[in-house]
Amino acid sequence: MIEAHGYAAKTAKSRLEPFSFERRDPGPKDVVIKILYTGICHSDIHQVRDEWGGARFPMVPGHEIAGKVVAKGAGVTRFSVGDLAGVGCMVDSCRVCPSCQEGEEQFCDSGPVWTYNSIERDGKTPTYGGYSNLIVVSEDFVLRLPDNLPLSHVAPLLCAGITTYSPLRRFRVREGMEVGVVGLGGLGHMAIKFARAMGARVTVFSTSPSKESDARKLGAHDFILTKKDGWGTSVANRFDLMVDAVSADHDLAPYLGALRKDGSVVLLGVPEKPLAIHSFLLISRRRNLTASLIGGIRETQEMLDYCGQKDIVSDIEMIPIQKVNEAYERTLRGDVKYRFVIDMATLDT
Amino acid sequence: MIEAHGYAAKTAKSRLEPFSFERRDPGPKDVVIKILYTGICHSDIHQVRDEWGGARFPMVPGHEIAGKVVAKGAGVTRFSVGDLAGVGCMVDSCRVCPSCQEGEEQFCDSGPVWTYNSIERDGKTPTYGGYSNLIVVSEDFVLRLPDNLPLSHVAPLLCAGITTYSPLRRFRVREGMEVGVVGLGGLGHMAIKFARAMGARVTVFSTSPSKESDARKLGAHDFILTKKDGWGTSVANRFDLMVDAVSADHDLAPYLGALRKDGSVVLLGVPEKPLAIHSFLLISRRRNLTASLIGGIRETQEMLDYCGQKDIVSDIEMIPIQKVNEAYERTLRGDVKYRFVIDMATLDT
Repeated sequence: MIEAHGYAAKTAKSRLEPFSFERRDPGPKDVVIKILYTGICHSDIHQVRDEWGGARFPMVPGHEIAGKVVAKGAGVTRFSVGDLAGVGCMVDSCRVCPSCQEGEEQFCDSGPVWTYNSIERDGKTPTYGGYSNLIVVSEDFVLRLPDNLPLSHVAPLLCAGITTYSPLRRFRVREGMEVGVVGLGGLGHMAIKFARAMGARVTVFSTSPSKESDARKLGAHDFILTKKDGWGTSVANRFDLMVDAVSADHDLAPYLGALRKDGSVVLLGVPEKPLAIHSFLLISRRRNLTASLIGGIRETQEMLDYCGQKDIVSDIEMIPIQKVNEAYERTLRGDVKYRFVIDMATLDT
Repeated sequence: MIEAHGYAAKTAKSRLEPFSFERRDPGPKDVVIKILYTGICHSDIHQVRDEWGGARFPMVPGHEIAGKVVAKGAGVTRFSVGDLAGVGCMVDSCRVCPSCQEGEEQFCDSGPVWTYNSIERDGKTPTYGGYSNLIVVSEDFVLRLPDNLPLSHVAPLLCAGITTYSPLRRFRVREGMEVGVVGLGGLGHMAIKFARAMGARVTVFSTSPSKESDARKLGAHDFILTKKDGWGTSVANRFDLMVDAVSADHDLAPYLGALRKDGSVVLLGVPEKPLAIHSFLLISRRRNLTASLIGGIRETQEMLDYCGQKDIVSDIEMIPIQKVNEAYERTLRGDVKYRFVIDMATLDT
């Protein structure tokens, strides 16, 4: 076994604190990655606080991992020592079910092995995430990272990036399309960049007037303040696609109403309460309500390659790991532009 | 003007009773159709009772119209006197908006001119529907009817037929697909026939055990009784498409849960209360919730031609028009297999 260390929560009520643990020795197909940067995803907080249920402690969160290969098994063909390497939300899956065969391991019939708060395919070994100094992952779940981009800004692409890229590709976003982005946070700011790069006209919907200038700097053509009643009437029947990155409870009616015929609202968040959907809004223009869940390994690689070509990265605020608990509080307040990234070199300071 | 007569409701509280009115003299592009059979659609009842608001009285309902051409304008090219001819839910539209240009006049930006309870494009002339002896319609909104099928059984295809055919085609239903049909009534029984003809494996979901034998006779391979709690677990993650023809309030969760990855629930009815949708059900398998609204004229013609080729018609119970009020009550109780059709010859008895 390999000695590893990082930050973990011991219970759902605990702050994150230093934690030592073991990683497996690399098997023939495994890559050992020295972790340089890890993004803080809102879902890290949900899981650390057991808000989704079934949490496993101690928990080392982190699934936006960017680093360098420092060792590898004899059968590894796609990576060499010294290569940049990334790990996202998944580290394994059954590999044989229809979803896995289609390269959409996130929908694996057995459930994928998540990067943390999960159990390896051996049925017993807990997985520990990227708030740590190294990780051992099968090369099939390791991503090549573009080498022309600042690595700390690349880390959030492994979750926030693929989560927004995948639905935009699924709906073949392209020039001439009107795309709405609901909520300007970690996901929303990536959705703006991608939709803009793909050629769409991009409108941001937000309850905060202060976000307008940022939205425009990030590439949005238009900004709709959703605090005033009746804002929906000005945008009715206009959008081909609406990417909804808001996890808080909110009324979908004006967003559905803003879709043109055959348009779609794609939910990326999981509001706690059920959504109230008036079927008339769907029927009257044959609108669709759907959702999206990260993306498969193949599409994640495609997204990273695309970012390399188009110079797309996340806007980040770098923190030392000692400030992770404070960063959680600020994330919950939306006080970050637009993703915290932990400088993992600080783990040993 | 042409003298016409039929049955109308004078107010939202009135029974239908004999009514005389005028149709326009046929213009150059108009077809005059002697109506032989008209189906009773549930939406006739909603509109006659002003349950959707904005009803115009006196109202002559009926938009499942089958008859024969008895006169035509000089510019009519697609119909000859003596031809079978049908009229569905629409008799005109703006013809220039994107939806009209795409042949989806039901989504016309100005709103299509509905066959009854609507106003002609002149902005003032009320439209009167098919519970009458004749109708005058622009040939662009008149359908050719297959001549190898019993005409009384063809009438319901003009609404119940296209309403179920359109979503099945949109989702390219074919061999190897699992299609669910929720609710066995006028729409549901057509959905079974079409989905079966297109090669799908068809499962009917119903709260009535008595409907199982009919469902199987109509072509269903399987039947799920949805009265018992927990029925959803036996069918989780199985269906590619679920056609939901139930207008009563009902819980969509088990139907969404029955979809496999990328599967869709298509709503055909408009339940009164908003639907409560747990976004987790959408996200976990990237499922879709959508809806469908009849179909355009081009697709309605395609459906009628398909019915001619595949010998598909509606199961009906024929009534004289004098029994129309009673038929409404029976329709509301679900006491019809599966569509009432008015024999319009009885109008003059």
